[in-house]
This record gives sequence, structure tokens and C-alpha cells, in this order.
Amino acid sequence: MLLLTPGPVPVPDFIQQALMRPVIPHRGKIFEGIYSQLLERLQYLFQTTHPVCTMIGSGTLGVEAAMYSLLRPGEPVLVVNIGKFSERWADYARVLGLDTHEVRKSWGQTITPAELQAAAEAIPGLRGVVITHCETSTGVAVDLEEISYALRQVCPEVLIIVDAITTAGAIPLYADAWDLDCVVTASQKALMNPAGLVCFGVSPRGQEALRETHAADYRNLLNYLRQAAKGSYPYTPPVQLLYGVDEALAYIGRETLPVIWNRTHTAARFFRAGLETLGGKLFPESPSDSLTAFSLPGHNPDVVRKYMSEVHQVILSGGQGHLTSQIARVSHMGMADITAMKTALTALEAALQQN
Amino acid sequence: MLLLTPGPVPVPDFIQQALMRPVIPHRGKIFEGIYSQLLERLQYLFQTTHPVCTMIGSGTLGVEAAMYSLLRPGEPVLVVNIGKFSERWADYARVLGLDTHEVRKSWGQTITPAELQAAAEAIPGLRGVVITHCETSTGVAVDLEEISYALRQVCPEVLIIVDAITTAGAIPLYADAWDLDCVVTASQKALMNPAGLVCFGVSPRGQEALRETHAADYRNLLNYLRQAAKGSYPYTPPVQLLYGVDEALAYIGRETLPVIWNRTHTAARFFRAGLETLGGKLFPESPSDSLTAFSLPGHNPDVVRKYMSEVHQVILSGGQGHLTSQIARVSHMGMADITAMKTALTALEAALQQN
Repeated sequence: MLLLTPGPVPVPDFIQQALMRPVIPHRGKIFEGIYSQLLERLQYLFQTTHPVCTMIGSGTLGVEAAMYSLLRPGEPVLVVNIGKFSERWADYARVLGLDTHEVRKSWGQTITPAELQAAAEAIPGLRGVVITHCETSTGVAVDLEEISYALRQVCPEVLIIVDAITTAGAIPLYADAWDLDCVVTASQKALMNPAGLVCFGVSPRGQEALRETHAADYRNLLNYLRQAAKGSYPYTPPVQLLYGVDEALAYIGRETLPVIWNRTHTAARFFRAGLETLGGKLFPESPSDSLTAFSLPGHNPDVVRKYMSEVHQVILSGGQGHLTSQIARVSHMGMADITAMKTALTALEAALQQN
Repeated sequence: MLLLTPGPVPVPDFIQQALMRPVIPHRGKIFEGIYSQLLERLQYLFQTTHPVCTMIGSGTLGVEAAMYSLLRPGEPVLVVNIGKFSERWADYARVLGLDTHEVRKSWGQTITPAELQAAAEAIPGLRGVVITHCETSTGVAVDLEEISYALRQVCPEVLIIVDAITTAGAIPLYADAWDLDCVVTASQKALMNPAGLVCFGVSPRGQEALRETHAADYRNLLNYLRQAAKGSYPYTPPVQLLYGVDEALAYIGRETLPVIWNRTHTAARFFRAGLETLGGKLFPESPSDSLTAFSLPGHNPDVVRKYMSEVHQVILSGGQGHLTSQIARVSHMGMADITAMKTALTALEAALQQN
């Protein structure tokens, strides 16, 4: 079976082996050594020299925890809403009691620096901006470097919270150089691990904004960062998953980010060229290299996917929300390299001939 | 290495194998079949016919989510505070803005039905009671059957929220028969899995109390229960960990709960008898079978544990909070059966002779 869904991604053997290392007691020097090393490698992933930490949870909890920890009820926040996941962050901003503003684009479209600037300038006292680096529901990416820069021109001190769930370790991301305040990613994407861990990088500005903590307040990043400084964990850590994520980060460190970004880019380019030849159509206007969302004029993508899955054991994702049965999505993250893309295109070609 | 900490516990081979099964797409019939089966087995664990669900997170998130989902700011809640973990729940009740009351006992002591009744009766309009079935920090258990029954005599409709993290699958627990409204457990205890999953059982009374949900509100049990009814998950599910937990639940179902409870009981009895012979002293007045917390008159437990770990590779936990260096703790959950207890006692005996 070739699983090419844009998360979860297949867990490669070398990470499976790491996940199976024996459990160790999670209080003490051995754990602290392992976790401190993981955090150092995580700084490389985010390209930051500032504190990082992890939390048990799915990506949704990660972005929720970032918003909860950095922002207070009543504060104005702007959510860039370009698809299913960013819509979720806007929704949650309202749950948190934030003064929630949205700048919306049609699904598949990205936002320009000028549009974000205009939206931000229109909100007096804007405190935070939540940006989804890549909207997994449509495959669209924002030019995070450009829009963060543009945003800083009009709101120098605004807190920039970034959902980098489908981008960290897949496409270029520089938390410090781009002056991002809280970057969030999850284990089941480019980190090639089971779902269950979220990772954070927090800038000095982000740290100043952190909510003062009570001992028990699971989503509060301050608890995690304070313990992480000692290599420790506020609650029971997911020891095995930390082994797996550390192994992925070590691999990324050895291979280096530019090499991995380039491989992802090559896989995406290769797939898209083949797709065009087969009559498929790229869905988003500004696609992320992490995944390709595409339509198949004259074909029902769900029928095509079913055939690919049943006959070729190649599994893609379908569309979400109003894009259900309109598009298919294929991952280029982790082990989904050019060889995997060849297999996917062969299966797609056969499926299009039959359906 | 023989890891005998009261969570995390060692992951046995048959669960490791399950954890390594390939990732599958988490939308669709195959996942729904697997998850529905897990939920049915989870009902057996909790001894309930009512809805159950799971969430990615550690035990702390589990109890936090239960309190957040069932109770509203300003509502009076009574927390039975008998140690480090139940203190955390009281702390979090204040974070949630609940009208927080506590009935406190010294660490190591349990609460009687009459004490709980008196405390509950003194709070007008009491809405919820949070009870820690076994306080892992001291090894003390409450007689949950008796105190729930007593509580219902004075507050028939109060919401009973139970931290069963160190008890579900280890000692008798009957969610329906004891009329409990929300029971919470975690994967890294008697379920013998890595940390990362929390499980809930919710009574009809508990369901009625659930907070109306927004799509994005990670801790809201309503999201999980609604999806669970269809075998589905509101966010990215931890597929591998669900395999592992399902395997544990299947094992528990085959072996049956009474057999497992009895094995845990036997291991606890055996260890405590040996401990007494060696001059050790049981710490709590009403010990849970899940673990034994004990002091070693004339010895420093930390020094003894260090020797056991370094020379015999037998690892126990120490004390927490003000019990640091006062006690040691040994698990009787999961694979920590009478054979493991023999090894532990042999190591303890040697350590006491040397230290």
C-alpha cells in the first residue's frame, strides 16, 4: 500500500524502530538528556534560536493552545481564512472570546501582502494575526515571508501565530528571520510520525505575551516552556513518540532542510507535470510543495481514487467541505518522493482510462 | 530493565506489534470499523452501556476536558483533594472560573462517605463533584462505590466526574452501576500503551450537561461523542495508538476484568507482604491495588531506588511534592504481576542490605 494522503503520512521503518525503544522513567537525567536534544533539533526545524516545546495533542490543539496562551478575551485578532483549517481557527477565536476579524478568500486562492496590510490596518489595536502557512484542504500556500514582512510594516508589534502543520520540514520556513511569534507544527506530516505530538517555537515577543500559568492548565505554553528549559515536561510525556520525533528531527538535521525542501519541490513539480499530461488540473492558484490538490475534468475524483486504491493500492485524499467529490489531494511530504510520484501517476493514468 | 513506575508502564510485545500496523487513511469505512470496535471494547472497560470516546492528550487534559465540557463558569464544584493530582483538578477548577470548593485530607488518607456527604450538603446548588479514584502520588484509593452512593443520597443530580486514570483496568470500576457521569482514563497505565490517549465514558446526565459545541474547540467532549457515534473522529486521530489501545482492550476483554482485577490484587498483596518482612511500611491508609507507596524506616528511599536501578535494573518511582525522598512507589498494573513483584522484592532486599 502506498499511502499518499497529506497527513497522516506513512511512518518509515527507521522511525518505527525508534518508536519501539523501551519506555524510560520520565523524571530524571536520562529523559532530560533525550528531550533537551530533541528541542535543540526542533530549533533547527523552525530555524529559531528561541525556546521551543512540545505537547501531546493533534494539530488542532496546537493552534488552539497557541491562541489561548498568547491572546486574551476581548483582544482584536485577525484570522486569514482561506479554507477549512483556517476557518477552524476563526471559529475558535470566537470560542476564546477574542474580538475576531477575518480576511476571507475563496478556497484555492491565497492572500496578497497588500490585502493583509489593508485588513490589519482597518482594525484598531490589532493584537494578533493567525496565518495558515499551507491550507491542507486546498493545497494553497501563502507567501509567509512576504506577508509577514508586509504586516510588520503596519503593525510592528502584532503577534503573528502561524499554523505550519503542513509546512515545517516540507517547504522553507524561518521563524526568526521572518519574525514569527508562535509557530506550530504536528508529528504526522513532514515529521513522518504517528499523530499525537504538536511542536511550538515561541519568539521573545510571544513569550512576553504568554498567559501567567496555574499548575493545571493543559494548553498553557508557559508550563511547557518553563519545564522545557530544564529538559523536563509538565505532565506525562509521550516518551515513545518523542523518540520517533527526535529520530525524524535527527534525520532532517543530517540531510539538512534545503535538501529536503528541494526534494519536496521536485516531487511536487514532477507530479504536476505528469498530472497536466494526463489532463488533470491544479486546483489552488499558489500551491504549496507539501501537497497537490487537483481536479480531473470529465472524471469524478472519488471514483478515480477508489480505483487507484482498490487496483493499485495507491491512496490519495479527497476534497473537504464544498470540495467533496470535486478534487483529489496527494502528499509530497516525508517519504513521498519522486519514485512514489511515478507510482502515483501510473495508477492515476490507469484509473483515468478505466473511469 | 524492569520498569515498575506507576505510569508509564512497559509496553508489552503484543501491543508493540499492534502499534506498528501500517497507517490507514482516517476518513472512511475501514477506520470507522476499527474505531467502532475499540469503543465497544472501551464500554466493557468502563462497565457502561453509554457513549464513550477518546482524545489525543495526557491524563491531565482528560480531566480538564471533562470539567470544561460538563461544567460552566460560576457553577459550584466540590473537588476531593487528597494528593498531588486531585490538587491539580482543584487548581484547574479555579482556572475554569468555577465556584470551587475543596474537601481536603492529608496525603495518604482517604475520604469517608460521611465526610463527602457533609461537604456536599454544605454547598448550595452543588453542580459537580470531582473525585480521584486512586491518587497516584500517594497510592491511596477512595471507596468509589460507597462515596458515590452516599453522594447521591444528598445530591441526586450532581455530576460525578471521576479520574480513573490509575484504576480503570486495574481495580473494580462500574460506571453505570455506580452512577458516575464522566469517567476518564489514560493509555499509559493499565492499558499498557504509550502515553498519548485519554478515554471517556459519559452518562446520560453527563451528556445533557455537555457544552454546546463550536466546530473548533478541542477539549469539548460533545465533538468527540458526536463523531464517535459514527465511528469517526473530529480531528486527526492517533491511528497507531488506537491500534495499540484496541489491542489492550481486546486482551482485557478476553482475559475478563475480574481476572485482571484479581491478578492486580494478588500482585499488590504479595508485594506488601514481602515489604513488611523487609521492614518497609505501607504509606496510605487505604491503598489501591494499582500501586504501592511505601516508606523504608531507617533508609533513604531515593538511595535505595538508585541502587535497585543501577545494580538490578529494577525501576520504581519516588515521592512527589512534600513526599520527595520520603516514599517509593511500585506499580502493579499491566504486566507487573507476581513474578515481577518477586524480582522487585529481591532487588529491594539487596538494596536494603547495602544502603
